[in-house]
Parts: sequence; structure tokens; C-alpha cells
Amino acid sequence: MLMSAQDYRESLSRYRPRVYLNASLVESVADEPLLEPGINAVGVTYDFALQQDHEHLMTARQGTSGKQVNRMLHIDESSGDLLYKLEAVRLLCQEVGCAQRYLSHDALNALYQATARADAAHGTDYHRRFVNYLHEVQEQDLTLGVAMTDAKGDRSKRPGLQANPDVYVHIKERRPGGIVIRGTKAIVTGAPYMHELLVMPCRTHTAEDSAFAVCCAVPVDAPGITIVSRPAGRPGEPAAKFSARYGQSVAVVVFDDVFVPHERVFIAGEHEEAGFLTTSYASHHRHSCIAARAGFGDLLIGAGALMIEANGLDGDRHGHIRDAMVELITITESFYACGVAASVYCEKDPVGSVMPERVFSNIGKLLLATKIYDMHRLAHYVSGGLIVALPGPEEDHNPHIQASLSAVLAGRTDIPAERRAEVARLIEDLTASNQGGWDSVISLHGGGSPEAMKREIWRNYPVMDKAQMVERLLDRGLFDHGQRVGKQPGRCCAKGCEVPEPPKPVN
Amino acid sequence: MLMSAQDYRESLSRYRPRVYLNASLVESVADEPLLEPGINAVGVTYDFALQQDHEHLMTARQGTSGKQVNRMLHIDESSGDLLYKLEAVRLLCQEVGCAQRYLSHDALNALYQATARADAAHGTDYHRRFVNYLHEVQEQDLTLGVAMTDAKGDRSKRPGLQANPDVYVHIKERRPGGIVIRGTKAIVTGAPYMHELLVMPCRTHTAEDSAFAVCCAVPVDAPGITIVSRPAGRPGEPAAKFSARYGQSVAVVVFDDVFVPHERVFIAGEHEEAGFLTTSYASHHRHSCIAARAGFGDLLIGAGALMIEANGLDGDRHGHIRDAMVELITITESFYACGVAASVYCEKDPVGSVMPERVFSNIGKLLLATKIYDMHRLAHYVSGGLIVALPGPEEDHNPHIQASLSAVLAGRTDIPAERRAEVARLIEDLTASNQGGWDSVISLHGGGSPEAMKREIWRNYPVMDKAQMVERLLDRGLFDHGQRVGKQPGRCCAKGCEVPEPPKPVN
Amino acid sequence: MLMSAQDYRESLSRYRPRVYLNASLVESVADEPLLEPGINAVGVTYDFALQQDHEHLMTARQGTSGKQVNRMLHIDESSGDLLYKLEAVRLLCQEVGCAQRYLSHDALNALYQATARADAAHGTDYHRRFVNYLHEVQEQDLTLGVAMTDAKGDRSKRPGLQANPDVYVHIKERRPGGIVIRGTKAIVTGAPYMHELLVMPCRTHTAEDSAFAVCCAVPVDAPGITIVSRPAGRPGEPAAKFSARYGQSVAVVVFDDVFVPHERVFIAGEHEEAGFLTTSYASHHRHSCIAARAGFGDLLIGAGALMIEANGLDGDRHGHIRDAMVELITITESFYACGVAASVYCEKDPVGSVMPERVFSNIGKLLLATKIYDMHRLAHYVSGGLIVALPGPEEDHNPHIQASLSAVLAGRTDIPAERRAEVARLIEDLTASNQGGWDSVISLHGGGSPEAMKREIWRNYPVMDKAQMVERLLDRGLFDHGQRVGKQPGRCCAKGCEVPEPPKPVN
Amino acid sequence: MLMSAQDYRESLSRYRPRVYLNASLVESVADEPLLEPGINAVGVTYDFALQQDHEHLMTARQGTSGKQVNRMLHIDESSGDLLYKLEAVRLLCQEVGCAQRYLSHDALNALYQATARADAAHGTDYHRRFVNYLHEVQEQDLTLGVAMTDAKGDRSKRPGLQANPDVYVHIKERRPGGIVIRGTKAIVTGAPYMHELLVMPCRTHTAEDSAFAVCCAVPVDAPGITIVSRPAGRPGEPAAKFSARYGQSVAVVVFDDVFVPHERVFIAGEHEEAGFLTTSYASHHRHSCIAARAGFGDLLIGAGALMIEANGLDGDRHGHIRDAMVELITITESFYACGVAASVYCEKDPVGSVMPERVFSNIGKLLLATKIYDMHRLAHYVSGGLIVALPGPEEDHNPHIQASLSAVLAGRTDIPAERRAEVARLIEDLTASNQGGWDSVISLHGGGSPEAMKREIWRNYPVMDKAQMVERLLDRGLFDHGQRVGKQPGRCCAKGCEVPEPPKPVN
Repeated sequence: MLMSAQDYRESLSRYRPRVYLNASLVESVADEPLLEPGINAVGVTYDFALQQDHEHLMTARQGTSGKQVNRMLHIDESSGDLLYKLEAVRLLCQEVGCAQRYLSHDALNALYQATARADAAHGTDYHRRFVNYLHEVQEQDLTLGVAMTDAKGDRSKRPGLQANPDVYVHIKERRPGGIVIRGTKAIVTGAPYMHELLVMPCRTHTAEDSAFAVCCAVPVDAPGITIVSRPAGRPGEPAAKFSARYGQSVAVVVFDDVFVPHERVFIAGEHEEAGFLTTSYASHHRHSCIAARAGFGDLLIGAGALMIEANGLDGDRHGHIRDAMVELITITESFYACGVAASVYCEKDPVGSVMPERVFSNIGKLLLATKIYDMHRLAHYVSGGLIVALPGPEEDHNPHIQASLSAVLAGRTDIPAERRAEVARLIEDLTASNQGGWDSVISLHGGGSPEAMKREIWRNYPVMDKAQMVERLLDRGLFDHGQRVGKQPGRCCAKGCEVPEPPKPVN
Repeated sequence: MLMSAQDYRESLSRYRPRVYLNASLVESVADEPLLEPGINAVGVTYDFALQQDHEHLMTARQGTSGKQVNRMLHIDESSGDLLYKLEAVRLLCQEVGCAQRYLSHDALNALYQATARADAAHGTDYHRRFVNYLHEVQEQDLTLGVAMTDAKGDRSKRPGLQANPDVYVHIKERRPGGIVIRGTKAIVTGAPYMHELLVMPCRTHTAEDSAFAVCCAVPVDAPGITIVSRPAGRPGEPAAKFSARYGQSVAVVVFDDVFVPHERVFIAGEHEEAGFLTTSYASHHRHSCIAARAGFGDLLIGAGALMIEANGLDGDRHGHIRDAMVELITITESFYACGVAASVYCEKDPVGSVMPERVFSNIGKLLLATKIYDMHRLAHYVSGGLIVALPGPEEDHNPHIQASLSAVLAGRTDIPAERRAEVARLIEDLTASNQGGWDSVISLHGGGSPEAMKREIWRNYPVMDKAQMVERLLDRGLFDHGQRVGKQPGRCCAKGCEVPEPPKPVN
Repeated sequence: MLMSAQDYRESLSRYRPRVYLNASLVESVADEPLLEPGINAVGVTYDFALQQDHEHLMTARQGTSGKQVNRMLHIDESSGDLLYKLEAVRLLCQEVGCAQRYLSHDALNALYQATARADAAHGTDYHRRFVNYLHEVQEQDLTLGVAMTDAKGDRSKRPGLQANPDVYVHIKERRPGGIVIRGTKAIVTGAPYMHELLVMPCRTHTAEDSAFAVCCAVPVDAPGITIVSRPAGRPGEPAAKFSARYGQSVAVVVFDDVFVPHERVFIAGEHEEAGFLTTSYASHHRHSCIAARAGFGDLLIGAGALMIEANGLDGDRHGHIRDAMVELITITESFYACGVAASVYCEKDPVGSVMPERVFSNIGKLLLATKIYDMHRLAHYVSGGLIVALPGPEEDHNPHIQASLSAVLAGRTDIPAERRAEVARLIEDLTASNQGGWDSVISLHGGGSPEAMKREIWRNYPVMDKAQMVERLLDRGLFDHGQRVGKQPGRCCAKGCEVPEPPKPVN
Repeated sequence: MLMSAQDYRESLSRYRPRVYLNASLVESVADEPLLEPGINAVGVTYDFALQQDHEHLMTARQGTSGKQVNRMLHIDESSGDLLYKLEAVRLLCQEVGCAQRYLSHDALNALYQATARADAAHGTDYHRRFVNYLHEVQEQDLTLGVAMTDAKGDRSKRPGLQANPDVYVHIKERRPGGIVIRGTKAIVTGAPYMHELLVMPCRTHTAEDSAFAVCCAVPVDAPGITIVSRPAGRPGEPAAKFSARYGQSVAVVVFDDVFVPHERVFIAGEHEEAGFLTTSYASHHRHSCIAARAGFGDLLIGAGALMIEANGLDGDRHGHIRDAMVELITITESFYACGVAASVYCEKDPVGSVMPERVFSNIGKLLLATKIYDMHRLAHYVSGGLIVALPGPEEDHNPHIQASLSAVLAGRTDIPAERRAEVARLIEDLTASNQGGWDSVISLHGGGSPEAMKREIWRNYPVMDKAQMVERLLDRGLFDHGQRVGKQPGRCCAKGCEVPEPPKPVN
């Protein structure tokens, strides 16, 4: 039931999505070289789940079915699940830069919560449908794309007032057996090499715009879907030490009257629960992003250390180099710590699953979103200008100059010039290439812009509780703690949520 | 056995320390107005332990004795203990600014670890002595001062080479029943109103300087001790809304041939374990500082919210005000998150207790040390210039002008000018007064300077593991995960420590 | 005609302002110890103008009269004047922290511009009146306070809609010989020891609120004026190495139906020119603030260097200390550079005077406003915790402990403990005392809040020119520079202003 | 005598350098598509000098010859020259991103100073030789490459101790008619399309390493020179809106026993003056970099404004967007201001030319070096994620999807989707592509690393003067300004340099 990377790649052959890439129709996604880095990266999420070393992080027991599933498809039930997910995503992204498949996890968890709420409010049947679907996805070990960000059109107008309604995906028609959806999702990660797409709203909608409050699952090759994709990573570029191997594509996905049967429809007009779905997804996803970018930070820390060494330098002796490395570590681990805290102080949903605490999740994502640029800066700082000045890899085999270049481009004599060049190109690829630029923009805007996070922090932080705490201080004399009110037993002071039972001690 | 604040204050009367304050000898510490804010602040750590609301945070069961003790005197045994300590310290510091007594906790925990190590290495008897002492302290519910920072003299020379050896405390003589110590500790928090002082080394020492590797406990009024103290807070100043009530003193403590019996000596020359003690104390203490400053952050957040309101402004409508508040929240909660992560990933000591993970603890302290200045800036930003321009509280009762000032100094009409003035003075007191300045410097340098933290981060971070991880990536082809080595089962990827069992879910 | 500090102090005796300080009526401002630091600081602006060393910076030739006047009262006519004013203010503030009298300069320059504009638009006679007044002020070498910041009341309402109209100063009555003004100015620097107050609007007003668009000059002791002042600096505090000597007071000034004869009225209802006056004053003043805070930066740099030395450290050998000092220098000189650039690219007014370029002036002030906190942090960083832990100066003469403290509190053996203590207390006074807190808030909010500066930058920056520049790039092929339009000869590319003639080369 | 871009391109055909690019030998540099963006960018420095609009900025009168020359080849004689150079470089870089040719200017100015010093110290004849060469270069309107950064080898060892001496260029042999040089320069901007290369040392050398203290001029096609180049910009990439047109190449240049006749040798072993040359070049060059990156900032500001507009947003109404734009402006103009201040406070050389003031130049470069990453962040922030998610330009002509994409990818309805896409691709090209990554690394390390700048700031700042200023304050009583010493008439307070005569007022 758990697939390997090889199984996954083969499974893609069973789908026939309509994909354009650089204006050509892709014959077979599984064999398309320009998509291979993306397929490779997702593949690692399969292989790692089969390795004994990583099994405890990469798989989990699904509570509703009792079955062991890939953690990227698991519904979280405890703080521990969230901590394990963090570690699992970090592990994957240390290996592949961006593992992509955590998007499946994030959407499944949000839907698990939102469908139950919709049922409670409207007497609908979404949660049962969804759990069936979930089990099916887990059983087949699928990878799901998240089709969320609409094209949006004029950002100063709501969906219903757009000149062209297709700038947002919406329900065009309700039929006896299902619904017909139409519109455009502008940024779908990994779309061509997903098995299915989860269509979700990217913003809260008003009652008037309830046709836009739609969530459903469609196979990637459902009739009416067209995917216009960019290549994944930098396939075929000799200098791309990392991103020729692993990468992500993003695509525009056009839904041209796509029919979705009821069993695959999870929200259809319930705009309030659709709104909850959007913010719940945001919490799960921002939490995952934290781990993903920490894995990327690990790559930079490791590569930076190798580059320093190859240059003949040393963090112990060169204070300014050590300082930059410590700053890189501090950035990475401080936003990761927000992910840990969001796990520990997680929010329990009535349906039984947990969601990462919202303030910490948003703070962690906000920090990484802006500090990714500092991470690039620090990686460049410790590496030196060579990373963008080194002749291309073709010259490594140019018989007229290769020998002399090797002789002069070495740093420390016990480290071959070739190794130094390789590390330099890795850092260039990760931070100073098309791929590096892509990573920074996606870190900044993926999962919502910094302004969205700030608003969410503001909305969820107990500011007024703290104002009242100060008012009590002002109104009171000394040693007058008896009449202190408003603090309930068992509530922690800081977050308004309960202090978790201590985790079992490490042994 | 648990004392109240009132009990604590009375207990101080049973000590007769030699204390100078503004060049006068203090008759009775318990009755000295200039020390009262310090005594008040420590008092809250007693009273809160007796309140049902706070009991679960403020007390804990001591494993070695089975008794319920104040958490400020407890030896931590699990991640949960560390999380509870964090919350307890934050709670206290929301109330009093700086609770001081966590220093007792930090030193006791470090000694618990270090004495066992010294015994293991040298066959000494320190751990038994220390546990006896610990139980005595817990039984009597004492407060211990930490006498650590030596006067240091010329910082470019080690202790044994100083012109005047008394710039560091050292063993001057070994006698049959104990040792005689001599020297000066330059910055001892709360010294006059402590029951006992724990003398500890402030740096690692070489074998040649083993006389400086000394740790012991002495009553605050032991013969030979002179304390030269500063006032605690801003006692008696009418504008000091907060720090006339709660504060801390710091003191120079001179040890002029003080005899310490063996049962109170915990390290006496074992310089390696003394070095361990210093860094272990640093980890415990930096972890506590994180919570303390988060409590201070809560005060600023609450006071800022009140000030905004009194000015007739509103974070929902005024984006730049909201932005500043979110930045204040982000700073506070992101360093607090490092404390949470240090708890979750705590390090288990062979003796059975736990220590906060060092990298996260140091990062959290490093962040707060530098960002305290930003916290001041943001509190000022949202409050406006009034906080330093408002006429003094004396004018509130000046019959010639009071009425007209009240009329014109109000902001929003439904909030009295007096309340606005009170909040403004609170913010001035916390951030723009002698007390505010003191807080910022202590946040920066207390528990070690930023450079000390950076070095500790560098020493403890698995940089080479990450370099090897990247080397493996460079040396490998695609999908070649089979031969991946070096990752042991059950180890988490990020920190080289085990992933804790999930904390019990919130309910 | 140019007074000395002694003359200035004596001249104050000729005024009888109604001043309350700590709820007492001040008998004689010139003899009030709590105001002495303020009088001292202003005094230096007089003495320096009489010293041969500083004459070229501290005096200038007034174009309209041909007379040599104190530069703090001079109307700027060239980039050079602005550069000299910058240097003069920096020089003064190196000596006294905040020289205050540049406020006179800033208001006089703004009025010189605004009165001419009002006359041009309304046929009024303000400019002549003002020039007469200017010459009188210069002739008598007066110091003028700026009464600008109104009490404001509910900040979400405009003046005319306030429950109490007296929260803004306004024209209550127009009489044949003059006007009657009424209301409250909330933050007036140095009010008690000014000769006259210049009443100015603190915001732009609408036509409906034209009664609030009033500008005039009143003697500090005009009937109806009450000043409620705070002390200047920290007079009488033994630890206040600097601010017992030099300081500033701020005061609330209540105008209770104050009559102003026409010859002293410079705007009376012309709300558009009043608005111009406000922003023009802001440009002049923000430019002056830059120099003032650079002088403060010089104090921190110098004091920091002395402290490092006394601690036995050395920027050449200790990288992290050097780094902090370089950051302090970088902050100081980079905002100062904005002042220089604002001078070079100054804006010529039709009336013949110049105003500092607005974007650079606002950027410089914006930088210092937020970076003053970093300056404090860096000064603390290089100094160590001693600055807030040192026993008070009273202990220096405590015979029981003085000798032993001196012995142990020394750093480098060739620098006496007393000198080290003195420098430590200076840094505490400048950055970690009531005074330091005051300085930071005033740096942040004085001359307008950061948000005000950001809006002014946005309003004045040629964003659309740059957008068009990029549009041209997009619409053009290669080497097609012939049809480039929109760039006029003699215009500089960056600012839309003319490139100045080169300054005469240094010799 | 002044060439056009077309003349320049043709002139390149008269050189036959040995250039490898992607492992192929380049037939004709002038016709090589992969180098065309570099040639285009340099070409603009020629064309602009011929346009009436730009003539005043782009040309100047050479004092030693009285002739009008391209400003990129001019020796600066005044503050005004430096201001004009700044504006000229900014203008060019607004057009082409990086104009490259200012490197010629920077090296010529440094040589003008250093050759005179060498002659004064050693009785050599370098200055005459150099002036002849300068006039020749100006007469022919050449472009000179700067071959400075050596390969360096093991960075912990000085040149003479390297295993392979060829990691630094050095004098291998002295012959009657000239010298023979040998070694490798690792990062030479624009090497293939320069007319000549100026070989210069990249660090100070000791007397033992005097063979490495060599400076000379060689034609780019001198026998023995091999250039291994990277492409300039992103030639031929359809998405590269900017860098397919304008770019820079960098190259490794191997000198394999290249003979240089005496008349082209400007330093040959005089290691002290070679050291001066290095730092003088650094000052000139860092000053030029400031202007170059300000021009780049202008491109981002303009493009950001267009993107905001196309998205239907508006800085006036959306505070967070305005805030980001103001931050981008603040960064750009605050480092530019340092360039202006360095011009005003320039240092006069005994030989008659001027050098930008070193502290301001280094601060400006230090700021841009680290803040380029923030500039990228801000450009991304205001633009949204579209810039890296938009399908490639090939899809613009894909008949199967083009129409529907255009319909849904528009933002504001009055701005065509094509224009929005074009702006998005421009921003991607400038900040999130290989080119953007290259720009950031070159901004960080080009002209020396941040640590080099910090050391230069530390070395040149009058720290001790400021320490003495504070000492005087501490040692003095009130109003005791008479005995103030150490300030000389006519010296400015801040920098220890003379206050320049005021620039002529703008009119």
C-alpha cells in the first residue's frame, strides 16, 4: 500500500493530464525531462517512508482507520504528531529542498476540520464523504495538489464584481449527480505530477459570493482541466548541482466546466465554513513551511561550512565568519522553534484532530518569509564572490585550460579545486540562480503574504487579556494578590490555551 | 513549609547582613524602604505558590524527596517541568517585572548536575552534600542569591595573573573543617534580601587557576561578607507607577576571608566540573531569562494597548499601529518559542535531571538581549511622545492648573485624563526611566554577553553533521537513498537528540 | 549684540513667566536649579558664537540686513549655509547633548518662506512684519521656543469637532489691534527659559478649521500664559555625569486668552499657507535633528571608546567590539550623510532662501528616530553590565568600603577605578537613565512620528518619474536612445532637482 | 574623439583576444551573442556622452590636457566632479543595470594618485608615464578592464608562501625593455570586451612579496593572455526582459608570461605605494558602486510602482504597500546620501586630484552590500507571487491557451494582461533570476567584502578624537569653554577635514 518512488513515477503514467510546458503539449508527464526534478522530489517522500531509519518520522497510524499511512497524508491527533510532522518535513527538505507533498497533508487536515463544522452547521454529509476519500487516498498513497490561489483579477474588487468571473474558480452549475466548476487557479505547485487536485477557496467570501465557496477533489486529468506549467527546477543545466535533480514546478490550472460528482465535493456554498477552511489550511500550511525552510537552512549551513573550509578559512579563528554562521543558525532555529511551540500549544478541534497554534505558526512563517533573504545574504557572505564568478562546468573539461584553472582555482591545498567548484556551484544554485530567486519569492508569498500573517496574528493574539492584566496592576496596591481574578485554573498565562501535559522525558 | 510573602519578609529579620546603600549602613533589610520593591517582587513568588490558581505552575514535586516545593527551588526532571518553569516565570514577571528567584532555581539545577559529575570523576562527596542542602533549602523555602560575576580586573588577563587576586573570588585557605574564600563578586542580583548566597565561578578556569574553581553556599550574613547595594527599583518616586512597587537591586559583594564548612562546599578546585557548572548554569539561566522577558513583553503589550485606546486610536483601523503591535508580539513570542523548543528538546543528564537544550536556550537569550531595545522602541512608537512630556504626578494635585490640564490632556472623551496619564507614566517607568535603562542593560549582559551566547551556539550546533549531509548529497546520484548512512534510528534529524514522545494532547 | 551665556542668563531675569515645576511656582527661572541644565545648554550656543574657533560655524551674515548673527537665528541662503548649520548643530550637541536653540532657527526659516507665500496668495502683509520681527530677534540675540504640538484630544477627530476646542490653540477673537488666542500646546521644549514663544500649527487644517491656522510670536511672560514644566535633565543627581549639567525641559503651555498685536501675527486663518508652514518647518527641523543626534552619536562613540579601554579591551584585537563600534559609527554617519545630501540638493524658495531637500531630510530623521535604540544597544554592548551595576557615587566616599571597592573595580591597571567609574556613569546617564529614556522617545517622536516621515517621503519622491523611466525601457529596443524624452538638460537624474555647481575644492 | 556605441563595437573588432566561453573559443567578441548584453551596456556609456541631454553629466574637462573627455575616464578635481560622477553613474545604471565602465574611472584615478606618491618616495618616473597613458586612453576613448582580484589560493597564507605562486599575478622577470608578468586574476568584469586591462594588486603586500606589487596596462589581446569568461547577462532567454539586452560578464584571466614594456608599467615592486593604490582604488570604486546600485534601486522602484498599479493596488490606500515602497526608497537614498557626503567631504591629494572621503564611501558601500537583499525582498513584497508563477513567454503565443490566459491573468481591467506579464518578468529578471542572484553576490563582495569595509571604517574614523572630546567634558566644569583645545579654526567638527565652501545655490 505504501508506494516507492518508482511506483509513484509509474503510477503517473496512468493519468493523462493536458499539460503545456514552454508552449508544447507534454506527451507523458512521467517521462518529461523538464518535470523530472519535481517527480524526483516527490519520490523521496515515498522512498523515505519505506526506509527503516525514517519510518518513525515518515509514517503514522491513521486514527479513523487504524492503518499505517505516509505522514504526508495523516490527520494529526496530538502535539506529538505535529512535532513529528515538523521533523519529517525538515528531513525531506534537507534532501530535496522543497518536498511539496506536505501540501497534501495540510489540505487534508484542514478539510477534516471544516467538513465536520459544515455538517454541524448545515446538516450536510461532507465529513463522511471526506473521510471515505481520505481513506482512499491513504490506501492508494496518492499525492494531491492544492489548487487554491485564484487568478484574482482586479484585487480591489470581490469575486462577484469582477469583469470576468473566471478569474476565481466557482460553481457554474449544480446537477443531480454533482457540480460543474469553472475558473482559473494561478499558482498550483507541482500540478502536472499530482494524482489529484484539491480545489479550495483562497479567501473568505461573503454570502453573495457563495458560488465561489467551493471545495472538491478532481483527478488531474479530469475533462476540462488544462495545466500551463513551468519547468521544475533547472533540468538539464550543468551548473545546477541541486536543482537539476530536485525542483518544483508551478502551474496555472484552467477549469473549463469540470464536472465533479457529489462524493468528491466537500464544500459547496457554505461560505462561512469555506472561510474557516481557508484559515485552517493556512495554519497547517504555515506550520509545514517552517519545517521546509528549516531543511533549506540546513542545506545552506552545511554548504556554507564546506565552502569556508575549501577557502582555507575557519569559524573558530575568523570571528566575522563565525558570526555570520551563527546568524544563519539563529535565523533557522528561531523560526523552527516557533513551529515547535505551535505544536506544543496546538489547538484541539471538536472533531478530534489538532491544528498548530495560530499565533506561533504565523510568527514562524512571517519570520522565514522575510529572513529567507538574510539567509541568502549570509550564505553568500561566508562563501565569497567565487560562487558567481567561477567559469561554467563546461570549462572543467576544456582541454586548453582545464589544467591551469584547476591549479589556480584551488583554495586549501588538501581540497581539490573540483570539490571547491562543486560546492560553489551548489551555493550558487541554491541562492543565486533562477531557482534561488524562485525560492525566495515563494518563501515570501507562498501560504499567504506577510501582511496576511500579520493580520492573523493580530486577530488571534489575546491583546485585550494583556490590557486587562495591566489594568489590574494599575488598580491594585501592594501584596494584594488575593482578589486577582480572571485567571482560571489550568490555563496557561501566555496564550489563553491550556498548558500541555509535559512530554515524556527523553531517555 | 511553603512560606507566604509575609513569612518571607519576616524571615529576613532573622539575618543581619552588612549592607551599605547610598553610603549608609542598612539597619534592617526587611524595613529598608529603598529595598522594599525587591522584597515585594520576591514575595510574589511565595504568595503565588499558595494560590490555588497558580499552584500547578508554581509548585512541583521534588523527585529526591517526594515533597511539594516551590518551583523556583525544584530540580527539573522532564520537558514538562521545563515548560512549567517557563510558564511560571512568565506569570511572575507579568506581575513584578523581574521575579529574581528563578536564579535560585537555575543555580540549584546546575549544581545538581555538576556535583554528580565531580563525584564521578574524582570520587568526591559533593552530590550527597548538595542534595542534603537542597532539601534543607526546599524545606525552609529559602531564596538564594547567585554570586557569580567576578570583578574581573583587566579582562585581557586570567585570574592568576591579575595584579590584585581579589578581583576574583578564590580559595584562600583550606582548613580541616572547611575553606576560607576571598574576593569580590561585582553584580549580585538582590543580594541584601537573599537568605543565602551561592558562590559560583563565572568562567572556565585552567588547572593553574584551580583555586578559583570554587562553589559553595554561605548565609548572607556570614562573617566577612560586605554588600554594597543599589536601591531596588525607584522606591518613593511618585512617577514610578511600577518600579516604586517592584524592582531589583544589584550589589557588589566583598568576601573578606569568609569561612565555609565542608558541608556547604560543592566544588573546591575541580576546575573541569566547575567549568561544566558555569555552562550548565548558563543554559538553565538563559532559559529562565527567556520567560522573564516574555512576561515583561506582556506588560508592554498590555500597556501599549491601553495607551493606543486612550489616544483614540485603534489597531484595526490604523495599520501602522497594528504593525508595531504585531512586531512587539512577534519579538516576544519568537524568543519565547525558543524557550519552548529548548524544553521539548531538553538534554537528559546522567544524574536524572534535565537541562534545556543549549542551542535553543542560547538563541532565545541572544534574541531577547538585542531585541529588548526594539521592544522599547515599539512601546514608545505606539504610545506617542506624551509619555516623556507629561507633567509630573505632583501637578495632578496642583490646584492652580489641575482642572485645566485634565481638560486638555484627555484623549478619547470616555477615558479620563487621569487614566491616560497613569498608563503613560507606566510606560515611561518601564521603558524610559532609570529602571527601563537598567532592564535593557541587564537583558543585554545578564546571563552572559551576546558574544558568549554566539560562541556557545557555535560550540554546540552540529555544523559538521550538516556539512556531511551536504557532502553526501554532492556525492550521490538520483534516487540513491539506499546507502544513506549516519542517521541512526530514533534520532531526530535536526538536533542530534531524540524526538520526544508527543506531549499528551490538549483536551 | 551677540550675547554671552552669562548675558543670556541675565536676560532671563527680565522676564516673569508663570511657570509651575513639580507643582510649585518658580520664583526666578534664571535661578531655578531644576532648570539650570537647560539654561546651561542654551548658554553654550551663545558662548560658542563668541569663540574664534567656532565663529565661522556659529555665526553667519543675514542677507536681508547684512549683519552678522548667531547661526541659530539665520535665514539660510545656500547649500553651504545648510552644511554649516549641520556642522554647527553637531558641534553644539557634542557638547551639550541637545542644544535646543536650533528650534528657533527652524521656525524662523519656515516663517520666512510661508509669510511670503501667504502675501502672494492673499495680499497680506505678513512677510514685512516677519522680517522686522526677525531683525529684532537677531539684533537682541534672543532664543525662541516653538509652541507647536497641540494637546490634540481625541486623535480620530479634527480640531473643530473636539469636545473641548482648547485641545488646539486657535484664534478666539479678532480685535482691531490684534488677535486673542486660546488653547494648549502639549510639548514645548525649553519653554521656561525662552525669551519668546512662536505659536505654530502642528498639522494641516481644512478651511472649516481656519481659526486653528494661526501663527504668531508672544513673549514668554505674556498675560494669560501658564507653563507647566518638567525639570531639565537630572539636576542635582550625583550619578548624572552629564545631565546634571546639561539638559532640556519640556512643558505644557496653556494659552488662556492671550492677546497678540498684529505686528506679531504671521498667519491668521490662511490655512493653506499654514499647512505649508507646518511641512516647511518639518523639513528644516528634521534636518537639524539629524545633526543634533549625530552629535549625540559622537558622545557615545567617544565614551564607548573610553569604556573599552578602561575594561582592558581593544577594538583592534577584539572583533566583536570593533564590529559594534563600526555599527555605531555607521548608524551615526549614515543618517548624517542624509543631512549633507539634503543640504546639497536643497530646494530654493521663490523668496530667496533655501530649504533642505525633503526626501533626504525625512529619511535622515526616520533613520535616527528608529536607530537611536540601536545606538543605546551598541553603547551598552561595548561597555558591559558594569554601567548599571556600579555602586552609586556616594560610595566613592564611604570610608568603610571605598578603598576595597577601588581596588577591585579597576579594569586595566593603568587606568584608575575612579576614571572607569566616571565613564561608566556617563554612559549610564546618557543611555540608561531617565534622561536616556527621554532622549530616545524624543528622537522617535520629536519633529513628527516615523509615520509622518514615511508619508512625507511618499508624497515627495518622484515615484511616477521612475515608473515612466521603466516604461520607456520596456517599450524600447536596443541602442535606441535617440528618442529618449522627459529628461531635461541640466536636471539631475535622481531627484528631479538641478545638480548643484560643484562646491569649491577643499584646499 | 568621443566614440559612439557603434564605434565602440567596431573598435572591438580590431582586437583578437583569446577568449573561452562555455568551453568554446570565441571567434569575434564583437559578434558573439553571449557577450552582446555586456557590449550593449558599455555602449550606452558612449552614446550618452554624445547626447545633449546628458553631456554635462557624461563628459568633463580633463585638467592636465584641457580636453573634453568621457567622465568614465576623467580625473576628479573637486567635490563637484565627484557629485557629477555619482549622478552620471546612476543615470547609466538606471538604463543598463551595471555600466561597468566606471571601473576604468576608478582605476585611473587611483593610479593618478599612487604614481605620484611612488615618484616622490622613490624618484621613479611613473606619474609621467601614467599621464601619457591617460591622455592616450582619453584621446581614443577606450574602455579599460580592472584585473585586480587574484585567485588567492589558500587564504590563510600570504602570496609568497603559496604552493603555486601563480595564484597571484607577479613579476616573473625584469628585462631591459619591460617586465614579464605571470599569474591569475579570478574575477575580471567584462574582460572580453575591454580594450585594455589594468593589472593591479588586490591586497597590500609585505616587502618580501614585492614581486607581487605590480601595476601595469596591457592590451586585452597581448600574447600570453587567456580569458575564460561567463556569458554577459541572460542572452537569448525570452523571459529575460532586461538582461537579454544588458548584462555583464566576469572572467578568469590567465597571464602566462606576458611582456609589458616600461611605458605601460606604473608600479613595479614599490609595495607601499601599491598598498596605497589598492585602498585608493577601493575608495573611488566603492563610491562608484553606491551610484550604480542607486540606479538599480531606481529600476526596482519604478518597476515596483508599475506592478502595484497593474495589480489594482495603490500606495495611497494600502499602507503596507506604501510602507514597503518607502523602505525601498529609504534604503536607496540613504546609501546614495553617503556617496553625496563622501563627495562633499572629499580628500584632496597632493597631486591635485580628489578622492571621495573614505568613511562615507565605505559606509555607503557597506550599506548597499547588505541591503541589496532587502531591496530584492521589497521588490518581491510589492509585486506578489505572480512574478515567479507566470507561465513563460512562449505561452504568450501558444494558440491553444493564449486567449484564456490573457483573460484571466489581467489585474486591473484597463491594463492589458500582456503589460502586467511584461512588468512581472522584468522584476523576476532583475531580482529572482540567475542575473538577480549575480547582482546580489556582486553587490556584497564586489569592491571588497563587508569585513574589508568595516576595517577600513575603523582605521579611518577619528575614534580617538571623540574619546578625547569626552575626556574634556569629564574633566571640565560648567561654562568653562575658554580653554577648549584641539579644535583648529576652519576644521569641521565631525570628520577632521575642512568644511567645504558652500556649493553654489540652486537657482
